Amino acid sequence: MTGPARPALAHARWTVVTGDLFTDRHHRRLAELCTVVGPDPIGDFREVDDAVLDAVEILLTSWGVPPLKPSILDRMPKLRLVAHAAGTVKDFVTDELWDRDIRVTSAAAANAVPVAEYTVAAVFFSGKQVFRLQQAYRQHRALRLWSDDAPGLGNFGTTVGVVGASRIGRRVLELLAPYDFELLVTDPYLDDQEAAALGAERVELDDLLRRSRIVTLHAPSLPETRNLLDRRRLGLLADGATLINTARGALVDHDALTDELVAGRIDAVLDVTAPEILPADSPLYELPNVFLTPHIAGSQGAETQRMADLAIDEIERYIRGEPLHHEVRRDDLDRIA
Amino acid sequence: MTGPARPALAHARWTVVTGDLFTDRHHRRLAELCTVVGPDPIGDFREVDDAVLDAVEILLTSWGVPPLKPSILDRMPKLRLVAHAAGTVKDFVTDELWDRDIRVTSAAAANAVPVAEYTVAAVFFSGKQVFRLQQAYRQHRALRLWSDDAPGLGNFGTTVGVVGASRIGRRVLELLAPYDFELLVTDPYLDDQEAAALGAERVELDDLLRRSRIVTLHAPSLPETRNLLDRRRLGLLADGATLINTARGALVDHDALTDELVAGRIDAVLDVTAPEILPADSPLYELPNVFLTPHIAGSQGAETQRMADLAIDEIERYIRGEPLHHEVRRDDLDRIA
Repeated sequence: MTGPARPALAHARWTVVTGDLFTDRHHRRLAELCTVVGPDPIGDFREVDDAVLDAVEILLTSWGVPPLKPSILDRMPKLRLVAHAAGTVKDFVTDELWDRDIRVTSAAAANAVPVAEYTVAAVFFSGKQVFRLQQAYRQHRALRLWSDDAPGLGNFGTTVGVVGASRIGRRVLELLAPYDFELLVTDPYLDDQEAAALGAERVELDDLLRRSRIVTLHAPSLPETRNLLDRRRLGLLADGATLINTARGALVDHDALTDELVAGRIDAVLDVTAPEILPADSPLYELPNVFLTPHIAGSQGAETQRMADLAIDEIERYIRGEPLHHEVRRDDLDRIA
Repeated sequence: MTGPARPALAHARWTVVTGDLFTDRHHRRLAELCTVVGPDPIGDFREVDDAVLDAVEILLTSWGVPPLKPSILDRMPKLRLVAHAAGTVKDFVTDELWDRDIRVTSAAAANAVPVAEYTVAAVFFSGKQVFRLQQAYRQHRALRLWSDDAPGLGNFGTTVGVVGASRIGRRVLELLAPYDFELLVTDPYLDDQEAAALGAERVELDDLLRRSRIVTLHAPSLPETRNLLDRRRLGLLADGATLINTARGALVDHDALTDELVAGRIDAVLDVTAPEILPADSPLYELPNVFLTPHIAGSQGAETQRMADLAIDEIERYIRGEPLHHEVRRDDLDRIA
């Protein structure tokens, strides 16, 4: 390659959950852009030669990269960019990283895609009460008037409330816009005009919970959002409403949620819980009104390659001296997931 | 209302499954357009006075309208339009109806919407192997590397094959177009250009079955499509592929399908089966690789109101002397559902 210099790039991640992340296509792109150095991937920096780390200008990370503490950063004096081929960077960024003006970019935008897609599917199936009717069919095994088992079913004019105009929340609104839903959104940082541009009506959280037949959580997990849906707020949900949580279990008072679900007053699609994994004797595993999955809405299998594409796009922009599209700054951490 | 005359309109349907069909809004529109006569609805024409039927120019029908035989048509000499607020018209149209030049319009386009939406949700959840992972989580109740339970998962570059470029098949292709799928389509009446315009590659059925990770059926149920997926063709599906059927059970050799599913070689999302309802001892109710629902993908609950909107739109066009958008003609019956 002529033109820009070929900086040294090292990989750092945990292989077990990133087995599908990079394909031959990705390796070829990286080889054109950079000089790839060191073991692929680095799991433990202590096992890597000083000479290798000394050259590294770009670190391409993903799930399982350890926190980038001074003891590691000291060995990579030329490090200028950490391109994270995964969502949240909170597990590995350190104050020292920011202090050294090392730039950080995240593939949260790519990881938002499968979460939003899972959510859209969950909204359709919830509005249609598909999970409940699947259970009813298995139970009765005879012709019935199915609407008796699923009052208020149907995705026509159904009110869907999105809690959090995060990247994922916005994408969910975008994907639902072409369909016949009434969309509500609540977010402390969103104004009426922005909500309208997203095709939604901005309301306060309590109103959203009262008015929505389906509520889907897309707020970041922060100290201020812990138990955002506490017992009082869960009580605002209409009888037969569905709560979808693909965000974080900590957003919901787990005991209060369990009580509502055991009582059968509301339905839920839960990809995340508190704790995760649920205890083996949790009633949520067997309840007919709960559809429970093991934190899989985010990038899985081939979906992780979308994050690899984004991270390598960012690396290419960095090398060309172009603005990064997905840079994360120290100040962002208080607001993002 | 000034302007066009107000023709006499009668309702005919089976009330039990059409309880949500017409809202106050629909009744107001009809009252503005027509003079509504007779019982609402007529379930059995024998119970209706001759004088009422004699006036009827428009019959607004839905599920459960009886076949419009000469004995009924003779009593409605002024009948010019049957506006069917439901999908297929095959259950009630008769040769005599066409012979009398009575026009027929169908809300199949409106009924296609929820079927396509159910299918899109089923595609997302199938590509993500959500049903399989829900079962695995319930079974293991412990942290696992979930991709071990779901090889090849992820909605990124996944090949989805649509069998039948029917109204629903086209709508499914349209809804899937914005996502990262490779789309295949097969249909004897479709050419390469039309397929490309739908964002899909046109292939022969056998090729589609071999190449697709997810296959979804949208062909009409006709004598020629009976057992379209016979034992040989089901055998062409890749190990771990998912078959989605929201069309008709008769499209698939049920015994062969059951064998493949019991063997666990493929997965299925089945909203229709042969027979329907399945016998109480069918293994499909309990198999972890089968997601079974009781023929609910079509319009349910509030979704039926979309069909009412369409039927009344057609009635309005008829009264204004405008072309109908959803007319069904005798010759169409050989090709449509």
